[in-house]
Amino acid sequence: MEAPSKTLADIGEFALVDALSAVAVPADAVLLGPGDDTAVLRATGLVLASTDVLVEGHHFRREWCAAQDVGHRAAAASMADITAMGGRTTGLLVGFAAPGELPAQWAYDLAAGLAEEAALTGASVVGGDVTAARAVVIAVTALGVLDDSPVTRSGARPGDVVALAGRLGWAAAGLAVLRRGFRSPRALVAAYCRPQPPYESGPAAARAGASAMIDVSDGLVADVGHLARASGVAVDLDTAALVPAEPLVAVSAAYGVDPLHYCLGGGDDHALVATFPTSASVPERWTVIGTVAEGNGVTVDGRPYEGPQGHEHFRVSG
Amino acid sequence: MEAPSKTLADIGEFALVDALSAVAVPADAVLLGPGDDTAVLRATGLVLASTDVLVEGHHFRREWCAAQDVGHRAAAASMADITAMGGRTTGLLVGFAAPGELPAQWAYDLAAGLAEEAALTGASVVGGDVTAARAVVIAVTALGVLDDSPVTRSGARPGDVVALAGRLGWAAAGLAVLRRGFRSPRALVAAYCRPQPPYESGPAAARAGASAMIDVSDGLVADVGHLARASGVAVDLDTAALVPAEPLVAVSAAYGVDPLHYCLGGGDDHALVATFPTSASVPERWTVIGTVAEGNGVTVDGRPYEGPQGHEHFRVSG
Repeated sequence: MEAPSKTLADIGEFALVDALSAVAVPADAVLLGPGDDTAVLRATGLVLASTDVLVEGHHFRREWCAAQDVGHRAAAASMADITAMGGRTTGLLVGFAAPGELPAQWAYDLAAGLAEEAALTGASVVGGDVTAARAVVIAVTALGVLDDSPVTRSGARPGDVVALAGRLGWAAAGLAVLRRGFRSPRALVAAYCRPQPPYESGPAAARAGASAMIDVSDGLVADVGHLARASGVAVDLDTAALVPAEPLVAVSAAYGVDPLHYCLGGGDDHALVATFPTSASVPERWTVIGTVAEGNGVTVDGRPYEGPQGHEHFRVSG
Repeated sequence: MEAPSKTLADIGEFALVDALSAVAVPADAVLLGPGDDTAVLRATGLVLASTDVLVEGHHFRREWCAAQDVGHRAAAASMADITAMGGRTTGLLVGFAAPGELPAQWAYDLAAGLAEEAALTGASVVGGDVTAARAVVIAVTALGVLDDSPVTRSGARPGDVVALAGRLGWAAAGLAVLRRGFRSPRALVAAYCRPQPPYESGPAAARAGASAMIDVSDGLVADVGHLARASGVAVDLDTAALVPAEPLVAVSAAYGVDPLHYCLGGGDDHALVATFPTSASVPERWTVIGTVAEGNGVTVDGRPYEGPQGHEHFRVSG
């Protein structure tokens, strides 16, 4: 590793690639990791693949989250999608663009965070590309495997229950804290900088017979809306089942916000929402939060939801 | 499709995703394309995966190449890596970041170019992510399958011959033309904007028993250097076998450049270089251009090569 004062321009592309490749310890499914034209992974049957792009200034700020956290966060965004199909991530490919004046240590720490998050599901960084750009851009492609059939967004049927695994609203509240220039409650800031998707809960839902599943990255109401539209059903969410945690309540009181707004409209925790037929038993660590009916759209406690619905890129705000 | 005058900010993320997804006609190997949490592809045995990132201002300029060409070019960069392992691309995932003021039609044309290039190997765009950024960034991950064992960079042995498939120097000469503000010779500009990797030649080399292979993206001497280092051998290239084509000779004469500099130092044509043991017969469309010996490094006509060696990101120039 280089001294922290060196920049990417100091060390150059090829030394950076060598340093980043050294962090990647091939996982079991990986026959060939970084260093050749492509990665080579073992797969028998179906391969899952998903890409997420994080852009500095839009998805993270270097003054808000440490580079290692950004690595965890970038990996988690793609790995959560694999989980939401009922799969397990086996490898990550990382496209990394950055200005030459970026400290090389920032890139090394990013790579460490990516590798650590990948290791949570037994995966590793298997390849990637580095190049110059004015802002830091991180494009992570996660590859995954399945034991069961993929659980899509389109299988929910009237009569199913809607269940949740993982945290809701923590990352959004953490972002609100950071935007006001604060660093605490630290649990919320940590939730924003390093989300904790429930990686085990996706495959568990698939084994239990989940009819549809999605990860919450845009916001609960928005993402349940995607699931409802893909399935051609209506979903009603029951806020009595969404009890905001203590730090959420505290921050909401301080900022004069309904804590449910963070739970219903906030993304970035990468919680999972799944639907289960009544014949299935909802697995451990899943909480029933709603019901599926004929019709379309999402209601909250039987009424249209008027609060913030989540984020859409290119539109105003951010 | 929207009117050409609309921007990404006008139509918003979700409408853009819908429009881009509509271009993606799932190929045979694709069980589930865009629109769910992940793509799902069939694979039995080994999966190849490679990511390349193109950044506006570094890898392309919107005034030099049409959006559809940029799509072809971005897809080709990743697909050439699959070919260089002896594989066939089955699916592309596209991370796309762009400013809100970008005309929506540019994104549609980009998507059309990506889909058309993918179709050359029977592949399709299977997923992706769109987000906002100040400059256009395109991160393409190609997934592929193999009939034979992967042909890595590390299998070249003393006594092997070195062979080339595809064009050399055309894209570099096209870039030189564009940098001087010209648009002709059009064949060279087209070679830069829409490279033509020899997709059939990679699997053909694998079938013929190639011992090592790489695609030329940094420049012939630089990429053969990667192969030589990975294999622990020396390579000598024979310029008598590298006859520059007529438009290259014409442009070189006009610019006072040795045409061999484009052939030996220019990347972006995505030609393939492979080594073959003497027991193998070099397949059709491959030309022998050198020999492998004990030692290390790359020589040209038996001498060290002093010309431009190819591009390294973050360093000076571009």
